[in-house]
Amino acid sequence: MAASKLPPTIALDSDNEGLVVEIIDQTLLPNETSILQLRTVAEVCEAIESLRIRGAPAIGCAAAAGVALCASRSGAATEDPLLGQLESAIAQLAATRPTAVNLFWALERMRKTIARPPLPPREQLAEALALEASKIIADDLARCHAIGKYGARLLQPNSRILTHCNAGALATAGYGTALGVIRAADEAGLLNMVWVDETRPLLQGARLTAWELAQEDIDCIVITDNMPASLMARGLVDAVIVGADRITACGDVANKIGTYGLAVLADYHDIPFYVAAPISTVDYQLTSGDDIPIEERSAQEITHLGGHSDLPVVPVGVEVFNPAFDVTPNELVSAIVTDRGVARPPYEEALARFIPNA
Amino acid sequence: MAASKLPPTIALDSDNEGLVVEIIDQTLLPNETSILQLRTVAEVCEAIESLRIRGAPAIGCAAAAGVALCASRSGAATEDPLLGQLESAIAQLAATRPTAVNLFWALERMRKTIARPPLPPREQLAEALALEASKIIADDLARCHAIGKYGARLLQPNSRILTHCNAGALATAGYGTALGVIRAADEAGLLNMVWVDETRPLLQGARLTAWELAQEDIDCIVITDNMPASLMARGLVDAVIVGADRITACGDVANKIGTYGLAVLADYHDIPFYVAAPISTVDYQLTSGDDIPIEERSAQEITHLGGHSDLPVVPVGVEVFNPAFDVTPNELVSAIVTDRGVARPPYEEALARFIPNA
Repeated sequence: MAASKLPPTIALDSDNEGLVVEIIDQTLLPNETSILQLRTVAEVCEAIESLRIRGAPAIGCAAAAGVALCASRSGAATEDPLLGQLESAIAQLAATRPTAVNLFWALERMRKTIARPPLPPREQLAEALALEASKIIADDLARCHAIGKYGARLLQPNSRILTHCNAGALATAGYGTALGVIRAADEAGLLNMVWVDETRPLLQGARLTAWELAQEDIDCIVITDNMPASLMARGLVDAVIVGADRITACGDVANKIGTYGLAVLADYHDIPFYVAAPISTVDYQLTSGDDIPIEERSAQEITHLGGHSDLPVVPVGVEVFNPAFDVTPNELVSAIVTDRGVARPPYEEALARFIPNA
Repeated sequence: MAASKLPPTIALDSDNEGLVVEIIDQTLLPNETSILQLRTVAEVCEAIESLRIRGAPAIGCAAAAGVALCASRSGAATEDPLLGQLESAIAQLAATRPTAVNLFWALERMRKTIARPPLPPREQLAEALALEASKIIADDLARCHAIGKYGARLLQPNSRILTHCNAGALATAGYGTALGVIRAADEAGLLNMVWVDETRPLLQGARLTAWELAQEDIDCIVITDNMPASLMARGLVDAVIVGADRITACGDVANKIGTYGLAVLADYHDIPFYVAAPISTVDYQLTSGDDIPIEERSAQEITHLGGHSDLPVVPVGVEVFNPAFDVTPNELVSAIVTDRGVARPPYEEALARFIPNA
């Protein structure tokens, strides 16, 4: 496995007073690579809400790290007040963003670690939580490599792959899901180039995906979100690969707004449409994509370019609509690439075979 | 007809030395409504190339005005050198932008005015060209009202209409093509609201269409270009109406990049997809959309938000692709609304009935 040329998306470190969560501030990319050190749960929550760290798997890692941070830096002298602090931290972290299920999955893993009887002394509990968070992060990286391995097998030589948003190293603990497949395809000599949707409003494609690919000398071309159909009609796209924020037991996929449109366009042009995600992204409790909560974000993301208050591009007083995600029904998904293998329709059966610990 | 609350897109005025072409500088909207006075052909060309005036019919009007300006302000003492200046002006104006056919149509009308025998004295030629340019501008406004009247008849009460880019008053001599239909629908009480695609990279939807609609108190909601599919799936779009930059004799439609994708999405969701354009947009010489030249514009439009050199959003050195238009094949177009009536498939026959002077 080649060493990555990117700084880690998220890392656990420590200072004299306990754990420190280190993340790249993704809002500053591609112009500045700045490592943030987070020392409070509030700081972790703010980093998730403001998308300093984003991407479903990375959010899960950050939430787990936030819980470990809470225990590590708690002033509680005994277990009882610490448990209250941890419950509060978990509640705050769970309230940051609604759509990506990995957040709730990771918090559930931390909650189980807390609840594992007998209740250990305060220091041992903190240590167990730090270990669990580290394990979630390390597992996520390993899962991305597995996704890459399985996904690359789906691709033909010389593939021109279109991707949307950022499902890369930055969206995970490293290597990426959709970009994991792209990296593995590149390593296997199967990749021609990557079309990168800029992904309005926050431009995660232009800012983050293009940055990752450029760091690793993978050829890519950035386009605006209204160009993929034209490229497909010209025969310039061989496959579409995206990540996911939540996948139902039936294979409906919530992902960055615009994903559903790409799936319809891929279907129309007979181009395979692949979703890449760790099994922690599958919400086995939900059967229909209609039940996935879709986050709506602030109007300013659309009305002001790059969040600059001096650059309004929508007339004052005009309404905007800013759903962050959409849902692609399973019939438009050619395959779901997980760390446990590739699921093909019918997804209910295929995904059921991958249920963790089942 | 209610008085428009918008300044004219283009107007011919005069000073002591001849004609002045007045346009709104559309690059400054919606934050500043600035009227530019153009006094040379070079200034008219620059205004077209840099999109200070844009939209296929408006470009045609501007080109005609540019030719009249040339004659009006020429220092030539006799007809012969003036003819040379006019040929040069026409060549410069024709080279500004390749896709919209109205430009070439308007220049051809001016050329015919010049060539009409017998060659008049210098002053009379200038006057004839001023009159022809005025007529092209006045005709365009009248054509937009006719388009609105025909198009509104296609709509159901309470329509929620999605439009892309700006095919409004600003893209024409006034009233608009797609927005002409929307205005007429509003006047007829048929309009619920308008979904406005922001239309990257230059945001003509967010900046111009939303501005026009807000000026006239027509309800609209701005969205990013990757949201229409999700709105359609939610049942929130009753019709899509767009303008056109060139329509072939068979009804293939070149229009702002993203139009083709919308047509595929509308087809998938069983939503009517209408194109609104004056008959001057039909290029009866072309039968296939593949033969329409597609302008590619500068990378900076994508790499730097709002053209601000201090706001790079794509990593330095990463390639971008910036085609300004795409082509929608006729089978995806439900109807083409012209100033001569509504064309339905098969378009070759329907559009042939509208051939001017046929």
